[in-house]
Amino acid sequence: MSKLRRHRLGKRAPVRPGRYLEPGTAPGTLVFDPAAPHPAMQLIAYSADDLVERTIEDPEEIRAELGRWPVVWINVDGIGNGELLRRIGEIFRVHLLAMEDVVNLGQRAKVEPYDEYLFIVARMPTADLPQTEQVSIFLGSAYVLTIQERPGDVFESVRERIRKGRLRVRSSSPDYLVYALLDAIVDSFFPILDITGEELHRLEDEVLDAPDKSTVHQIHRIRRTLVELRRAVGPHREALNTLLREASYIRAETAVFLRDTYDHAIRIMDLLETQREISSDLMATYLSAVSNRMNEVMKVLTIVATIFIPLGFIAGVYGMNFNSDVSPWNMPELNWFLGYPFALSLMAGVAAAFLWLIWRRGWFT
Amino acid sequence: MSKLRRHRLGKRAPVRPGRYLEPGTAPGTLVFDPAAPHPAMQLIAYSADDLVERTIEDPEEIRAELGRWPVVWINVDGIGNGELLRRIGEIFRVHLLAMEDVVNLGQRAKVEPYDEYLFIVARMPTADLPQTEQVSIFLGSAYVLTIQERPGDVFESVRERIRKGRLRVRSSSPDYLVYALLDAIVDSFFPILDITGEELHRLEDEVLDAPDKSTVHQIHRIRRTLVELRRAVGPHREALNTLLREASYIRAETAVFLRDTYDHAIRIMDLLETQREISSDLMATYLSAVSNRMNEVMKVLTIVATIFIPLGFIAGVYGMNFNSDVSPWNMPELNWFLGYPFALSLMAGVAAAFLWLIWRRGWFT
Amino acid sequence: MSKLRRHRLGKRAPVRPGRYLEPGTAPGTLVFDPAAPHPAMQLIAYSADDLVERTIEDPEEIRAELGRWPVVWINVDGIGNGELLRRIGEIFRVHLLAMEDVVNLGQRAKVEPYDEYLFIVARMPTADLPQTEQVSIFLGSAYVLTIQERPGDVFESVRERIRKGRLRVRSSSPDYLVYALLDAIVDSFFPILDITGEELHRLEDEVLDAPDKSTVHQIHRIRRTLVELRRAVGPHREALNTLLREASYIRAETAVFLRDTYDHAIRIMDLLETQREISSDLMATYLSAVSNRMNEVMKVLTIVATIFIPLGFIAGVYGMNFNSDVSPWNMPELNWFLGYPFALSLMAGVAAAFLWLIWRRGWFT
Amino acid sequence: MSKLRRHRLGKRAPVRPGRYLEPGTAPGTLVFDPAAPHPAMQLIAYSADDLVERTIEDPEEIRAELGRWPVVWINVDGIGNGELLRRIGEIFRVHLLAMEDVVNLGQRAKVEPYDEYLFIVARMPTADLPQTEQVSIFLGSAYVLTIQERPGDVFESVRERIRKGRLRVRSSSPDYLVYALLDAIVDSFFPILDITGEELHRLEDEVLDAPDKSTVHQIHRIRRTLVELRRAVGPHREALNTLLREASYIRAETAVFLRDTYDHAIRIMDLLETQREISSDLMATYLSAVSNRMNEVMKVLTIVATIFIPLGFIAGVYGMNFNSDVSPWNMPELNWFLGYPFALSLMAGVAAAFLWLIWRRGWFT
Amino acid sequence: MSKLRRHRLGKRAPVRPGRYLEPGTAPGTLVFDPAAPHPAMQLIAYSADDLVERTIEDPEEIRAELGRWPVVWINVDGIGNGELLRRIGEIFRVHLLAMEDVVNLGQRAKVEPYDEYLFIVARMPTADLPQTEQVSIFLGSAYVLTIQERPGDVFESVRERIRKGRLRVRSSSPDYLVYALLDAIVDSFFPILDITGEELHRLEDEVLDAPDKSTVHQIHRIRRTLVELRRAVGPHREALNTLLREASYIRAETAVFLRDTYDHAIRIMDLLETQREISSDLMATYLSAVSNRMNEVMKVLTIVATIFIPLGFIAGVYGMNFNSDVSPWNMPELNWFLGYPFALSLMAGVAAAFLWLIWRRGWFT
Repeated sequence: MSKLRRHRLGKRAPVRPGRYLEPGTAPGTLVFDPAAPHPAMQLIAYSADDLVERTIEDPEEIRAELGRWPVVWINVDGIGNGELLRRIGEIFRVHLLAMEDVVNLGQRAKVEPYDEYLFIVARMPTADLPQTEQVSIFLGSAYVLTIQERPGDVFESVRERIRKGRLRVRSSSPDYLVYALLDAIVDSFFPILDITGEELHRLEDEVLDAPDKSTVHQIHRIRRTLVELRRAVGPHREALNTLLREASYIRAETAVFLRDTYDHAIRIMDLLETQREISSDLMATYLSAVSNRMNEVMKVLTIVATIFIPLGFIAGVYGMNFNSDVSPWNMPELNWFLGYPFALSLMAGVAAAFLWLIWRRGWFT
Repeated sequence: MSKLRRHRLGKRAPVRPGRYLEPGTAPGTLVFDPAAPHPAMQLIAYSADDLVERTIEDPEEIRAELGRWPVVWINVDGIGNGELLRRIGEIFRVHLLAMEDVVNLGQRAKVEPYDEYLFIVARMPTADLPQTEQVSIFLGSAYVLTIQERPGDVFESVRERIRKGRLRVRSSSPDYLVYALLDAIVDSFFPILDITGEELHRLEDEVLDAPDKSTVHQIHRIRRTLVELRRAVGPHREALNTLLREASYIRAETAVFLRDTYDHAIRIMDLLETQREISSDLMATYLSAVSNRMNEVMKVLTIVATIFIPLGFIAGVYGMNFNSDVSPWNMPELNWFLGYPFALSLMAGVAAAFLWLIWRRGWFT
Repeated sequence: MSKLRRHRLGKRAPVRPGRYLEPGTAPGTLVFDPAAPHPAMQLIAYSADDLVERTIEDPEEIRAELGRWPVVWINVDGIGNGELLRRIGEIFRVHLLAMEDVVNLGQRAKVEPYDEYLFIVARMPTADLPQTEQVSIFLGSAYVLTIQERPGDVFESVRERIRKGRLRVRSSSPDYLVYALLDAIVDSFFPILDITGEELHRLEDEVLDAPDKSTVHQIHRIRRTLVELRRAVGPHREALNTLLREASYIRAETAVFLRDTYDHAIRIMDLLETQREISSDLMATYLSAVSNRMNEVMKVLTIVATIFIPLGFIAGVYGMNFNSDVSPWNMPELNWFLGYPFALSLMAGVAAAFLWLIWRRGWFT
Repeated sequence: MSKLRRHRLGKRAPVRPGRYLEPGTAPGTLVFDPAAPHPAMQLIAYSADDLVERTIEDPEEIRAELGRWPVVWINVDGIGNGELLRRIGEIFRVHLLAMEDVVNLGQRAKVEPYDEYLFIVARMPTADLPQTEQVSIFLGSAYVLTIQERPGDVFESVRERIRKGRLRVRSSSPDYLVYALLDAIVDSFFPILDITGEELHRLEDEVLDAPDKSTVHQIHRIRRTLVELRRAVGPHREALNTLLREASYIRAETAVFLRDTYDHAIRIMDLLETQREISSDLMATYLSAVSNRMNEVMKVLTIVATIFIPLGFIAGVYGMNFNSDVSPWNMPELNWFLGYPFALSLMAGVAAAFLWLIWRRGWFT
Repeated sequence: MSKLRRHRLGKRAPVRPGRYLEPGTAPGTLVFDPAAPHPAMQLIAYSADDLVERTIEDPEEIRAELGRWPVVWINVDGIGNGELLRRIGEIFRVHLLAMEDVVNLGQRAKVEPYDEYLFIVARMPTADLPQTEQVSIFLGSAYVLTIQERPGDVFESVRERIRKGRLRVRSSSPDYLVYALLDAIVDSFFPILDITGEELHRLEDEVLDAPDKSTVHQIHRIRRTLVELRRAVGPHREALNTLLREASYIRAETAVFLRDTYDHAIRIMDLLETQREISSDLMATYLSAVSNRMNEVMKVLTIVATIFIPLGFIAGVYGMNFNSDVSPWNMPELNWFLGYPFALSLMAGVAAAFLWLIWRRGWFT
């Protein structure tokens, strides 16, 4: 598990639709976001015996390789160059609606069959949790085209397996490569669940032992992270299920493996649900803990006030200035031989009485 | 995205049924609301090569154009003129129940097949969020009739596309125009989700950093907005799904595009759900934050009271007027050489003891 | 909408099963509640051209009219006369289980086919919200028998339509009359939703502006009303759906209208759900508002106590009676030339310091 | 309704599985609980014309009657005698798994077809709410065997009907007897819902009028009762539905009646759901009421403290002992002609100012 | 029930995915956890008449027994020896994906058919609640292979039954053994529900009688336990349902028994749901109880402060040092004959008035 890309709980971002066209725009209108990363293209073509891997600059280079290999994998990182994407789209005869989905980020995971290819959208975790990145995959008869939102992906170990030769991936057809990519994407949520699980565990300790003001922020943050992860991962289940039934693109041998990926997606959703439930319980527990602490603070205040305010009153009484010379009724205590000890005893008695009352209510425990 | 109609979170309005007839009224009874805006009618008729666009005053003008164009689009803004609507209804042979739904606003999105046309109801966002406006659409073999609740709509860019010629919409049949209208309606919820998303984000910052009394009002308002948006958008999913199966009115080429609109409706519901969950969490977080602040206020009160009330009591004791001349037991401290420093030290000691107790409970952090 | 029967939110009543027989009683045992209103019977028989409407005393009068008209509608108000009901039951050959449901009030809306008639139960709102009243409807080949829980119903406008002649209801068969009755029943929930919607709106204003002790009672009451309305209305959806499929009793022409009623039932449930969600949010908002107010009260207490308790302590110190004659250490301040101004300044300084601390915590906003 | 067995909300008991065998025990192992009540056996055999009813001691007596009557009903009260049950099991050829379910109490309601009989489990309310008692019913071709957890049941009125003769039950086959028993069981939940409904109503009044510490206990108790009742009643729906489809044991005539029982089960679940929702609302309302009361207590404290602490401070100032002989700056007020009235006026002014501030905040309402 | 393995509520552990491979790893890659317990192997082979039971060291010993007995059961405890598992996998021709699931712990219960065997995953409770242990079961035509996560299981009584001979298990085929194992696993959750039920019951008493700070921790803990148990048990339902339909491996005779196990799984989920609902109610009740206690504390504080602060103020007034020699307006009371009694009476009057006000508000109850 050592080579895993490091994730961290990033800054909260607003939950908004991804890019969308102005309502009413003609379908298939491609409006490119000039601020998006400019595409870099990589081509890996392989048969059981041979392998070509290179960076390409001009989409026309792709045409040269297509048809010459059992599997040609073109990976495009970034969608900032509209002209380039349009030319790639032409080479693979991509439908306008599919291309619209490629550039209008924020799509849910889905599988859509077109005449010459399967169009698959998946969402890949990024280093900034819980943000995910859209990966558009076109699976044709002898090629796989992947278009990523931005550079950086979870496919490095798939590339390694291709380079190594002799592994199953080399002797297989494009559907197996698609399986390998989807499997890498789905499995890359496991380390994230490890992180959220650990974080929840730490928060549970914090809530139970020493909740403070920042605890609620952290619970809120992890809950949001889990909501957004669920939104990102959830549709993969349905998409994988659809994929399993696309028998014209997915061979039976590959379906066995995809079923395993489907199984992993179920397990991830299962864990997300459980973590979300625990986080809900945590919020309730936190609220109870805060109430408990307030109770305690109030008890201390009440104990101190209940004892000392009456005592202060007694002291106040004997601090009055009634003229005891005028009458025997005016504060004769002041002139008693044991006046002061009497007052102190009175106070001690009152304090003892209140302490006993408080103790009987069980407030000292 | 610059040309988007500006939305703002309008005044809360009661959630009530829209207009309805007195229970027991005969079906198809049309009771017109004289306060509703008076209708303005616009006709756009086009073929691949030609285009007519004009405002019409007399419904009979419509008859003249029907049948002469592949697509005639009549748009009626406002439902305040009963006579006019009745005449339009006659021209298109609209069923009484359908016409009843047109004028009794507050219908849910739905699709109902009649003999000569499909009757579609959709709900379009208005400038006053979260109020939505009912759009009734009749899709016939060569016409589209749209009746809006009031002037102002999201169809301007569709009109632009028709005017421009050469776009797909011009060479297509009425079902494509209906798709274009529904797509414009559904997509017009995206900018609203942008607004609610931003607002939620701002509220999250407010709750976590500086919640105040107005925060809860704002959370309540956004939650209500989301509930009402969900009620407005939700039925579109089912309606679009029904529409996809109405093969006699929707051609296969158009269905591909409608599926895309359906996909957008799903994404909008998905986002609404997520935003609603976040807003729920926000309410819980706010409540915790308020409790936390109260805790803090209580702590300050308790610390101050716990320290100064006992000190005040000690000062009170030495303010008593027992006559120390009468006996050596009566407040001899008053005559001690270091009586005052002794009293001050006693106070300092008591304060220190209480401070230490409080510090040990961790109330200063 | 002027003629609507006025509803008011009545006294809460316990949610209990309606009348039921002692468990183990033989099915079809009719135990009549002698406290129930005594039945009044009304007969309306009509064809397209003719109409008879009269109050009847003896059930045998019904027999005379049956078979002589396309539609005979017998309406019984009140179920307090067992003998009468038994005789009516005999005339229409009502199954014992159906008759049991007629007299054991509190049934859910449902549709049950028997050999010679459809047995329909619906629930009609009463003037005492959220109480509803059971209406049992028997739809035969040429008659409609309705038995109501007590006098007063929402059918007056249906009767008006029958009396007027020339309306569709006159030229139709009994299933259309049943539709008209069910439509009147379902639609009569719309004005109630208007009332609850307005009430919720008023409560929202109250919660946000000036929540007081009675607000929570009102929220509780409206929530209960909504729960009970949902329980009353909900089963109508399923019942109407079942009715739509009872092709032997419901003609296709009538089914179109019933679908409209079904649509209304869906809209009502939709609104009830939305109102209930808003009322839940309202409860949470109210709780936050109460917490906020407590926070404010606490802040005032804490500010006052934090400033004046220390000042009181200082005054107490200089009210001590240490004998300054005995030693120069004993309260020399009392004899300072500026002792009093010094003490006042000290107090002012302490107050300023505390005010500054409080201001820095932002408690004045 | 006078003869109903009286129910009372009994002591809460832990929610645990019923009896179960040590995990891994061979299926069909019968471990009898020696503490369970020892069985009493009763036999009722009847045809339309004749009837035998007697207590039996030896299971062999059953064999003599089987086959001689259209319906033989053997009722066993208590499961404490293993040997006896084993012999009864042999007579009716009861499958080991079914017998295991009979003695391992805590089964959910269910229907299981075996070769020679239907095995039905139902749960009957006991006098100690919300505890329920398991009733195992075997429906054979000419017998009904019921085995109850302990003496006391809701079948007395069924027995009465059998004894009376001439009622439908006498002329029917065993499936009708099973219907009568199940109907008696299901209907016996109605009086309980009456009790819980009344109790909830009383609690609503208490919460709204005068909530105290014990109220929350009572709400908790009724909620638990409802949860457990739902768990007991819920599975009957599915069981009855299954039973309706067991055409080889249930004749069409009986199915009509069973559908009625199914209807009752639905109504009971409906009521339980509604009561549970009301109880949830009640808890929220109670919490708000408690918060409101605390608010009120705090207001009184704050008003008193806000007025009297500053006054006490002023009195304290003029109780200081600065020597006015030393300088004209030292408390000249003490020697003013109207010093005391001035001080009192100052206090009155301060009190008035604070009262005005408090009044302006609206704390007196 | 005496021989049950003792469970205890263990330390909370983070909820995380079980072991998983680095995302992108080739499927079927077996990475063994060297820290896992080293495997111990046990072989039990039996026919109706004969039995062999022994510990084996070398997997090749298995080959010798396979095919010679109707049922060979190999049980492997611990998965720490990769080489050994690989060799076992070869003997039984285990698919790589299945073997991957065996070693990557944390799988959900499931049933997967392969060509030569059924692959079943179940989760068995461990002594450390709510941790569960993965049991992988391979059901072949004449063998059962079970691989457990670590030593210690719930199968001892199954082994006993096999050893005893003459029981059904001895004369049956491997599917019956699998049933016996699954039954033992599922039933082993019953004692746990006994424990959680008792614990909940104890907590209910604690919450209602004497809630303290630790109560909320305990409620949180039991809720977490129930969430995790539900996650562990839930998938068994679906798995058992799938198993019932795998007719090529499960004979009809065994299916009857498996249906019983399925029934138990349903009952367990039912109980878990109910216990979870009770625990939710408990949390709400606890929060109310805490609020109630705070209310009480506040009342005591308010009563004491409301009575003694005004009294202290009066004492303070008569402790002022206005010079009564200067004017008759300056504190003449000090020189009244009954000045002191007057002051005391004034205080008593004020105290009585406040007490009366408080009593009227009902704060003493």
